[in-house]
Amino acid sequence: MTTMYATPQDAEDAFYDAFEDADLERMRSVWADDDSVTCIHPMSPAIMGQKAVMESWQYILGSDAKMGVTIRHGQWIEHGDLAIHILEQQVTQGAAGQPPMPPMVATNIYRRTDQGWRLLVHHASPPPPPLQSDMPIPPASS
Amino acid sequence: MTTMYATPQDAEDAFYDAFEDADLERMRSVWADDDSVTCIHPMSPAIMGQKAVMESWQYILGSDAKMGVTIRHGQWIEHGDLAIHILEQQVTQGAAGQPPMPPMVATNIYRRTDQGWRLLVHHASPPPPPLQSDMPIPPASS
Repeated sequence: MTTMYATPQDAEDAFYDAFEDADLERMRSVWADDDSVTCIHPMSPAIMGQKAVMESWQYILGSDAKMGVTIRHGQWIEHGDLAIHILEQQVTQGAAGQPPMPPMVATNIYRRTDQGWRLLVHHASPPPPPLQSDMPIPPASS
Repeated sequence: MTTMYATPQDAEDAFYDAFEDADLERMRSVWADDDSVTCIHPMSPAIMGQKAVMESWQYILGSDAKMGVTIRHGQWIEHGDLAIHILEQQVTQGAAGQPPMPPMVATNIYRRTDQGWRLLVHHASPPPPPLQSDMPIPPASS
Protein backbone atom coordinates (compact mmCIF):
# COMPACT_ATOMS: atom_id res chain seq x y z
CA MET A 1 0.00 0.00 0.00
CA THR A 2 1.32 3.45 -0.90
CA THR A 3 1.49 5.96 1.92
CA MET A 4 0.18 9.39 0.87
CA TYR A 5 1.60 12.40 2.71
CA ALA A 6 -0.83 15.31 2.39
CA THR A 7 1.73 18.01 3.23
CA PRO A 8 5.52 18.44 3.15
CA GLN A 9 5.41 18.46 6.94
CA ASP A 10 3.68 15.07 7.03
CA ALA A 11 6.48 13.67 4.88
CA GLU A 12 9.08 15.32 7.09
CA ASP A 13 7.54 13.92 10.27
CA ALA A 14 7.56 10.46 8.71
CA PHE A 15 11.19 10.89 7.63
CA TYR A 16 12.42 11.66 11.14
CA ASP A 17 10.13 9.04 12.72
CA ALA A 18 11.56 6.44 10.34
CA PHE A 19 15.05 7.56 11.31
CA GLU A 20 14.35 7.27 15.04
CA ASP A 21 12.51 3.95 14.71
CA ALA A 22 15.04 2.51 12.21
CA ASP A 23 12.01 1.75 10.03
CA LEU A 24 13.33 1.15 6.52
CA GLU A 25 9.92 0.66 4.91
CA ARG A 26 8.61 3.92 6.33
CA MET A 27 11.81 5.61 5.16
CA ARG A 28 11.20 4.19 1.69
CA SER A 29 7.64 5.57 1.71
CA VAL A 30 8.95 9.10 2.25
CA TRP A 31 11.25 9.35 -0.76
CA ALA A 32 10.13 10.04 -4.31
CA ASP A 33 10.59 6.94 -6.41
CA ASP A 34 12.80 8.27 -9.17
CA ASP A 35 16.36 8.79 -10.24
CA SER A 36 16.49 12.48 -9.32
CA VAL A 37 16.35 11.94 -5.56
CA THR A 38 19.59 12.88 -3.85
CA CYS A 39 20.80 12.32 -0.31
CA ILE A 40 23.87 13.92 1.21
CA HIS A 41 24.58 12.34 4.56
CA PRO A 42 26.68 14.40 7.00
CA MET A 43 30.16 14.82 5.59
CA SER A 44 29.59 12.33 2.80
CA PRO A 45 29.43 12.59 -1.00
CA ALA A 46 26.07 13.00 -2.75
CA ILE A 47 24.18 9.76 -3.33
CA MET A 48 21.81 9.91 -6.29
CA GLY A 49 18.84 7.81 -7.33
CA GLN A 50 16.20 6.11 -5.18
CA LYS A 51 17.93 2.71 -5.17
CA ALA A 52 21.31 3.98 -4.00
CA VAL A 53 19.72 6.33 -1.47
CA MET A 54 17.71 3.50 0.06
CA GLU A 55 20.83 1.30 0.23
CA SER A 56 22.50 4.05 2.25
CA TRP A 57 19.55 4.19 4.65
CA GLN A 58 19.53 0.41 4.96
CA TYR A 59 23.15 0.68 6.09
CA ILE A 60 22.48 3.51 8.55
CA LEU A 61 19.25 2.14 10.00
CA GLY A 62 20.79 -1.33 10.28
CA SER A 63 23.34 0.01 12.75
CA ASP A 64 22.91 -1.19 16.32
CA ALA A 65 23.06 2.39 17.60
CA LYS A 66 19.67 3.64 18.74
CA MET A 67 19.32 7.16 17.42
CA GLY A 68 17.00 9.96 18.41
CA VAL A 69 16.58 13.27 16.67
CA THR A 70 15.25 16.66 17.72
CA ILE A 71 14.29 19.22 15.08
CA ARG A 72 14.44 23.00 15.16
CA HIS A 73 12.87 24.62 12.14
CA GLY A 74 14.62 27.46 10.33
CA GLN A 75 13.41 28.51 6.89
CA TRP A 76 10.30 27.20 5.10
CA ILE A 77 9.94 28.07 1.44
CA GLU A 78 6.97 26.69 -0.49
CA HIS A 79 6.59 27.48 -4.15
CA GLY A 80 4.30 25.56 -6.47
CA ASP A 81 4.93 21.84 -6.18
CA LEU A 82 8.18 22.19 -4.27
CA ALA A 83 8.78 22.87 -0.60
CA ILE A 84 12.16 23.64 0.94
CA HIS A 85 12.70 23.23 4.68
CA ILE A 86 15.93 24.28 6.34
CA LEU A 87 16.35 23.09 9.89
CA GLU A 88 18.70 21.99 12.61
CA GLN A 89 18.62 18.31 13.49
CA GLN A 90 20.17 17.28 16.75
CA VAL A 91 20.95 13.58 16.74
CA THR A 92 21.40 11.63 19.94
CA GLN A 93 23.01 8.25 19.69
CA GLY A 94 23.48 5.34 22.04
CA ALA A 95 22.78 5.08 25.73
CA ALA A 96 20.81 7.73 27.59
CA GLY A 97 23.02 10.33 29.18
CA GLN A 98 25.56 10.26 26.36
CA PRO A 99 26.28 13.81 25.21
CA PRO A 100 24.52 14.67 21.95
CA MET A 101 26.41 15.37 18.74
CA PRO A 102 26.49 19.01 17.66
CA PRO A 103 23.36 20.03 15.76
CA MET A 104 23.46 19.40 12.03
CA VAL A 105 22.06 21.77 9.45
CA ALA A 106 19.73 20.08 6.96
CA THR A 107 18.08 21.21 3.75
CA ASN A 108 15.08 19.02 2.90
CA ILE A 109 13.31 19.50 -0.43
CA TYR A 110 9.88 17.96 -1.02
CA ARG A 111 7.87 17.61 -4.21
CA ARG A 112 4.14 17.13 -4.69
CA THR A 113 3.72 13.93 -6.71
CA ASP A 114 0.79 11.74 -7.72
CA GLN A 115 1.58 9.82 -4.52
CA GLY A 116 1.43 12.90 -2.30
CA TRP A 117 4.38 14.92 -1.01
CA ARG A 118 7.68 13.07 -1.20
CA LEU A 119 11.25 13.84 -0.21
CA LEU A 120 13.42 14.74 -3.19
CA VAL A 121 16.63 15.99 -1.57
CA HIS A 122 18.07 15.61 1.94
CA HIS A 123 21.35 17.44 2.52
CA ALA A 124 22.71 17.30 6.06
CA SER A 125 25.97 18.78 7.29
CA PRO A 126 27.34 19.36 10.77
CA PRO A 127 28.67 22.65 12.01
CA PRO A 128 32.21 22.15 13.31
CA PRO A 129 33.71 22.54 16.69
CA PRO A 130 35.23 26.06 16.75
CA LEU A 131 38.48 26.63 14.87
CA GLN A 132 38.54 23.33 12.99
CA SER A 133 37.44 24.63 9.61
CA ASP A 134 39.87 25.59 6.88
CA MET A 135 37.37 28.00 5.32
CA PRO A 136 36.99 31.54 6.65
CA ILE A 137 33.79 31.34 8.68
CA PRO A 138 31.68 34.45 9.10
CA PRO A 139 30.31 35.39 12.51
CA ALA A 140 27.00 33.65 13.21
CA SER A 141 24.19 36.04 12.35
CA SER A 142 20.59 35.69 11.32
CA MET B 1 21.41 48.65 -12.75
CA THR B 2 19.88 45.26 -12.06
CA THR B 3 21.60 42.27 -13.59
CA MET B 4 19.13 39.79 -15.14
CA TYR B 5 20.17 36.16 -15.30
CA ALA B 6 18.18 34.40 -18.02
CA THR B 7 18.77 30.87 -16.71
CA PRO B 8 19.69 29.22 -13.40
CA GLN B 9 23.03 28.34 -14.97
CA ASP B 10 23.74 31.99 -15.75
CA ALA B 11 23.13 32.82 -12.10
CA GLU B 12 25.32 29.91 -11.02
CA ASP B 13 28.17 30.97 -13.30
CA ALA B 14 27.96 34.50 -11.87
CA PHE B 15 27.94 33.12 -8.33
CA TYR B 16 31.18 31.18 -8.77
CA ASP B 17 32.79 33.97 -10.80
CA ALA B 18 31.97 36.42 -8.00
CA PHE B 19 33.51 33.98 -5.53
CA GLU B 20 36.71 33.63 -7.53
CA ASP B 21 36.99 37.34 -8.27
CA ALA B 22 36.02 38.38 -4.70
CA ASP B 23 33.42 40.61 -6.38
CA LEU B 24 30.89 41.52 -3.69
CA GLU B 25 28.60 43.51 -6.00
CA ARG B 26 28.36 40.66 -8.47
CA MET B 27 27.71 38.29 -5.56
CA ARG B 28 24.91 40.60 -4.42
CA SER B 29 23.39 40.55 -7.91
CA VAL B 30 23.09 36.77 -7.80
CA TRP B 31 20.99 36.45 -4.64
CA ALA B 32 17.26 37.03 -4.42
CA ASP B 33 16.59 40.19 -2.47
CA ASP B 34 14.32 38.84 0.24
CA ASP B 35 14.27 37.41 3.72
CA SER B 36 13.86 33.80 2.62
CA VAL B 37 17.36 33.47 1.17
CA THR B 38 19.53 31.12 3.17
CA CYS B 39 23.25 30.40 3.01
CA ILE B 40 24.98 27.54 4.78
CA HIS B 41 28.72 27.94 4.46
CA PRO B 42 30.82 24.78 4.90
CA MET B 43 30.47 23.55 8.46
CA SER B 44 28.64 26.66 9.61
CA PRO B 45 25.12 27.37 10.88
CA ALA B 46 22.41 28.55 8.50
CA ILE B 47 22.44 32.29 7.78
CA MET B 48 19.04 33.64 6.79
CA GLY B 49 17.92 36.80 5.04
CA GLN B 50 19.61 38.74 2.25
CA LYS B 51 21.30 41.25 4.58
CA ALA B 52 22.93 38.67 6.84
CA VAL B 53 23.90 36.48 3.90
CA MET B 54 25.62 39.39 2.18
CA GLU B 55 27.46 40.30 5.39
CA SER B 56 28.84 36.75 5.46
CA TRP B 57 30.05 37.08 1.86
CA GLN B 58 31.60 40.44 2.61
CA TYR B 59 33.60 38.70 5.34
CA ILE B 60 34.64 35.79 3.11
CA LEU B 61 35.44 37.80 -0.01
CA GLY B 62 37.33 40.36 2.07
CA SER B 63 39.82 37.70 3.08
CA ASP B 64 43.29 38.10 1.60
CA ALA B 65 43.24 34.51 0.39
CA LYS B 66 42.82 34.26 -3.37
CA MET B 67 40.36 31.47 -3.99
CA GLY B 68 39.60 29.48 -7.10
CA VAL B 69 36.80 26.99 -7.57
CA THR B 70 36.20 24.12 -9.96
CA ILE B 71 32.68 22.73 -10.38
CA ARG B 72 31.52 19.20 -11.16
CA HIS B 73 27.79 18.96 -11.75
CA GLY B 74 25.76 16.22 -10.15
CA GLN B 75 21.97 16.48 -10.15
CA TRP B 76 19.90 19.14 -11.92
CA ILE B 77 16.22 19.33 -11.02
CA GLU B 78 14.09 22.05 -12.59
CA HIS B 79 10.43 22.31 -11.70
CA GLY B 80 8.34 25.39 -12.41
CA ASP B 81 10.03 28.48 -11.08
CA LEU B 82 12.61 26.62 -9.00
CA ALA B 83 15.83 24.94 -10.05
CA ILE B 84 17.95 22.74 -7.82
CA HIS B 85 21.56 22.05 -8.70
CA ILE B 86 23.65 19.61 -6.70
CA LEU B 87 27.35 19.72 -7.43
CA GLU B 88 30.85 19.28 -6.14
CA GLN B 89 32.87 22.46 -5.68
CA GLN B 90 36.60 22.12 -5.34
CA VAL B 91 38.07 25.22 -3.78
CA THR B 92 41.72 26.11 -4.15
CA GLN B 93 43.13 28.71 -1.84
CA GLY B 94 46.34 30.66 -1.67
CA ALA B 95 49.50 30.25 -3.67
CA ALA B 96 49.70 28.06 -6.76
CA GLY B 97 50.88 24.56 -6.00
CA GLN B 98 49.16 24.45 -2.63
CA PRO B 99 47.16 21.21 -2.37
CA PRO B 100 43.42 21.78 -2.89
CA MET B 101 40.89 21.27 -0.12
CA PRO B 102 38.71 18.16 -0.47
CA PRO B 103 35.72 18.75 -2.76
CA MET B 104 32.64 20.18 -1.07
CA VAL B 105 29.12 19.09 -1.86
CA ALA B 106 26.78 21.99 -2.59
CA THR B 107 23.04 22.28 -3.07
CA ASN B 108 22.13 25.48 -4.90
CA ILE B 109 18.47 26.44 -5.29
CA TYR B 110 17.43 29.15 -7.77
CA ARG B 111 14.09 30.88 -8.25
CA ARG B 112 12.71 32.70 -11.27
CA THR B 113 11.88 36.24 -10.11
CA ASP B 114 10.85 39.44 -11.81
CA GLN B 115 14.59 40.19 -11.90
CA GLY B 116 15.48 36.91 -13.62
CA TRP B 117 16.82 33.77 -11.96
CA ARG B 118 18.27 34.38 -8.52
CA LEU B 119 19.96 32.24 -5.90
CA LEU B 120 17.66 31.37 -3.02
CA VAL B 121 19.63 28.76 -1.08
CA HIS B 122 23.32 27.81 -1.07
CA HIS B 123 24.20 24.89 1.19
CA ALA B 124 27.81 23.72 1.07
CA SER B 125 29.37 20.98 3.15
CA PRO B 126 32.68 19.15 2.88
CA PRO B 127 33.07 15.41 2.81
CA PRO B 128 35.47 14.35 5.54
CA PRO B 129 38.84 12.73 5.47
CA PRO B 130 38.17 8.98 5.91
CA LEU B 131 37.26 7.73 9.39
CA GLN B 132 36.79 11.12 11.01
CA SER B 133 32.98 11.14 11.08
CA ASP B 134 30.97 10.05 14.08
CA MET B 135 27.98 9.11 11.93
CA PRO B 136 27.80 5.74 10.21
CA ILE B 137 28.71 6.52 6.61
CA PRO B 138 27.36 4.30 3.86
CA PRO B 139 29.68 3.09 1.12
CA ALA B 140 29.88 5.64 -1.70
CA SER B 141 27.47 4.58 -4.40
CA SER B 142 25.58 6.27 -7.15
